[in-house]
Amino acid sequence: MGLTLDEIAARFGGRLVGDARVLIRQVGTLERAGEGEIAFLANSRYRGQLAGTRASAVIVGAEFEAQTNLPRIVSDDPYLCFARVAQLLNPSPVAQPGIAPGASVSPGARVDASARIEAGVTVEDGAAIGAGCWIGAGCFIGSGVSIGSHCRLYPSVVVYSGCRIGERAIIHSGAVIGADGFGFARDGERWLKIPQVGSVVIGDDVEVGANTTIDRGTIEDTVIEDGVKLDNQIQIGHNCRVGANTAMAGCAGLAGSVRIGRRCTIGAGSIVLGHLSVCDDAHVSADTVVSRPIRRPGRYTGMYPFDDHESWTRNAALARHLAELAERVRKLERQLMQVEDPKRG
Amino acid sequence: MGLTLDEIAARFGGRLVGDARVLIRQVGTLERAGEGEIAFLANSRYRGQLAGTRASAVIVGAEFEAQTNLPRIVSDDPYLCFARVAQLLNPSPVAQPGIAPGASVSPGARVDASARIEAGVTVEDGAAIGAGCWIGAGCFIGSGVSIGSHCRLYPSVVVYSGCRIGERAIIHSGAVIGADGFGFARDGERWLKIPQVGSVVIGDDVEVGANTTIDRGTIEDTVIEDGVKLDNQIQIGHNCRVGANTAMAGCAGLAGSVRIGRRCTIGAGSIVLGHLSVCDDAHVSADTVVSRPIRRPGRYTGMYPFDDHESWTRNAALARHLAELAERVRKLERQLMQVEDPKRG
Amino acid sequence: MGLTLDEIAARFGGRLVGDARVLIRQVGTLERAGEGEIAFLANSRYRGQLAGTRASAVIVGAEFEAQTNLPRIVSDDPYLCFARVAQLLNPSPVAQPGIAPGASVSPGARVDASARIEAGVTVEDGAAIGAGCWIGAGCFIGSGVSIGSHCRLYPSVVVYSGCRIGERAIIHSGAVIGADGFGFARDGERWLKIPQVGSVVIGDDVEVGANTTIDRGTIEDTVIEDGVKLDNQIQIGHNCRVGANTAMAGCAGLAGSVRIGRRCTIGAGSIVLGHLSVCDDAHVSADTVVSRPIRRPGRYTGMYPFDDHESWTRNAALARHLAELAERVRKLERQLMQVEDPKRG
Repeated sequence: MGLTLDEIAARFGGRLVGDARVLIRQVGTLERAGEGEIAFLANSRYRGQLAGTRASAVIVGAEFEAQTNLPRIVSDDPYLCFARVAQLLNPSPVAQPGIAPGASVSPGARVDASARIEAGVTVEDGAAIGAGCWIGAGCFIGSGVSIGSHCRLYPSVVVYSGCRIGERAIIHSGAVIGADGFGFARDGERWLKIPQVGSVVIGDDVEVGANTTIDRGTIEDTVIEDGVKLDNQIQIGHNCRVGANTAMAGCAGLAGSVRIGRRCTIGAGSIVLGHLSVCDDAHVSADTVVSRPIRRPGRYTGMYPFDDHESWTRNAALARHLAELAERVRKLERQLMQVEDPKRG
Repeated sequence: MGLTLDEIAARFGGRLVGDARVLIRQVGTLERAGEGEIAFLANSRYRGQLAGTRASAVIVGAEFEAQTNLPRIVSDDPYLCFARVAQLLNPSPVAQPGIAPGASVSPGARVDASARIEAGVTVEDGAAIGAGCWIGAGCFIGSGVSIGSHCRLYPSVVVYSGCRIGERAIIHSGAVIGADGFGFARDGERWLKIPQVGSVVIGDDVEVGANTTIDRGTIEDTVIEDGVKLDNQIQIGHNCRVGANTAMAGCAGLAGSVRIGRRCTIGAGSIVLGHLSVCDDAHVSADTVVSRPIRRPGRYTGMYPFDDHESWTRNAALARHLAELAERVRKLERQLMQVEDPKRG
Repeated sequence: MGLTLDEIAARFGGRLVGDARVLIRQVGTLERAGEGEIAFLANSRYRGQLAGTRASAVIVGAEFEAQTNLPRIVSDDPYLCFARVAQLLNPSPVAQPGIAPGASVSPGARVDASARIEAGVTVEDGAAIGAGCWIGAGCFIGSGVSIGSHCRLYPSVVVYSGCRIGERAIIHSGAVIGADGFGFARDGERWLKIPQVGSVVIGDDVEVGANTTIDRGTIEDTVIEDGVKLDNQIQIGHNCRVGANTAMAGCAGLAGSVRIGRRCTIGAGSIVLGHLSVCDDAHVSADTVVSRPIRRPGRYTGMYPFDDHESWTRNAALARHLAELAERVRKLERQLMQVEDPKRG
């Protein structure tokens, strides 16, 4: 099995340089690839590894084309080209249709005959599971849930009642879709729970990472649009809407009623505070708290810089007294103005 | 089914204005509510939606009473009033008593006859599950655990051995109660594990969000008092105590041996460092690191402000040199003093 | 059952002062220990509790030796001594070998006869589970996974196909080992998934906290070396390597392709950004974003200081205008230089 380099180039449109007949069976890294493997250079941080690689071929941008003698595909977007080659050489496994012994499927659920339901799965009444779905061991599919065709739920995913998932979703283990949003009204000293009667609606081609949680809406639905990619341990609060093809990195969080535009990226550990909107094509860096709406595309950042502990101690102490420092500067400006021109004093 | 507006007002004490006989069947948002639905205005951010709403009635504060002609309930606390109406119209479902096939219940466990145990649940020896409890599919209830009456555990909750949960708890999927605290002593280059022999004790009327973790105590218990509400993905370290009616938002964390007072709110993504105490009625904003004890009620904040990336780059670079800047200001002050009064130099 | 104080001292090497025959059955805290319990003083924060303790004996450092009349072990490292005593008095439970009814073990899996597999566990084809392992209810062990001897997986752990775990691992509930790394290439407006064909390799004596996630590598493996201790809700991205005996506190995260050295500590809620390296013996404080490589051992910090909300508001506003403030200081310096020496202007 495998493909020759010219077959790869023909299929994915890069320019081939060198031996067209090299057989490629797998992808590899510049550092460790060997015989039969194709590596790629997409992050210039790793360009020093190009000279020494033992890969049989490489995918590079034009700027690195001359820096290797290996058979190569020169691509406008080496990372995308690599992704396509990797997908071709590593097709997703397809499950054997059927319901495993030890699954609990309600007679009132509709499971497509081509779907696979593993042991320990519960599918409740009124749920519908589409063609080619693969529901991993121990998943819970609540009453009335609908899951489109060709979805893969890895083991131990929980989908609460009434949620709707589109086609080709990939949902990793421990994800919880549709738990109650965090809604309470103060009632004297205590909190009164607000029933969360909305649901979660997930579009097509969405991936949800391990242990990510997406809460159901209070009244209307929490919505994840087509093509959204969510990393692990993300928290999406109730009533949020995440626009198509937005990607969020690990441990990011959206408070309630947040709207994120299309094609955004939200960095690891970032938080968007409640009821705020972020426009299309906004890119939020890691560990940034979005505390005001974002209305223009662009990159936004709010990481506090780290330092060796002693330097941090000195500087952070002053961060709590910036207003005083600014006042001292203002006073100096006034005094100096008077020194320069005593009549204005 | 449903209630007339005067029935709602009579039950919950608001002042009725307009047609008392309107029939209300469900709650809705100002933006999308329709025939038979009651909406509310509690956050002035949404007041612009009041004029255009198609709801059959609204709940408003006195300040907005005159801005609509719809039948309305005028309430001192529209959000609380809405919560009560929403609860009344959306009662919690009650499970059918019994132990589903495919559950593993130890003969040494006591399960009340009115409780429901779903498929794939394990209940170990010595555990006790109270009246009206509903234990979702795939939950694990360890040996000696006690769960009070009318608790709901959604699917895939894990409760380690010996933990005790009060009445009317709601625990969402993926929550882990009673895993070992993170306790190790350095032993040369290695870490020696400290057995975590305490437990977790949870009071009455507590809600625990999806994928939240509450570690057992090292020697004594980790304690969550009555009425505490925990959102998703919260981490509570060993030996903590969270005071009654405190609410913590998503992704917040308490390191070990932290004490949080009563009626506090802890914002999303905030962290309280180890061994610190936070007094009653303290309110910690989102993404704040509590690095000193909090001894007075009030609001506390430590979010680093975000900005467009270029502005952030300029300013954050200086945040690492604040001490130098302050020193330059001090020097200017000394020099200027000398310029103004050369005799003092 | 129990040990006398001189047996404890003999075994663990502290210096015994006072009655050697006191019988110790359990460990306790200074505040609450009673008859038959030994307490310890390792954190000077709690020294005020030494005088009033009702423990039968205490473990203290030499600096506190004279502050109590109780029978005591004087130790160079009271916390380590306490850990050893606690381990001795609280041995880990050992499971009864066998495969519980309701577990699904593939005929192509190898499970050591001394291992325990609880109800609801799935063990897929080609997986190997070593001697003395205890696999909790509802765990999923994917195809080809290998787990060394004497590991304990608490209920609801998921180990994806092909991952390898060493000996004596402790993995807490909800941990997900080997989910896909977050790898996508932009393809116009959409994201193209990059197959994650690497795996996760975990060394010996590793502990993994509840709901922690460790992603599989893109091409090569994500590696957790021997003796690493990971707290709850940690996220380890694809292709990371965590060096031996490093400890990471709760909610910390490593983006992709990060390398952490040996014997490091990473504080709660900290993040290391992608492709960065942290050298051996580096200690990162809580809530710090490591945005540059760390090349020298030491302590590093980047917490933004919190304050009462009003003070924070004043100071944080200026944090966004530091560059202007610095420019005003520069201007003052120039003006003052001219005032002092007009010829240089």
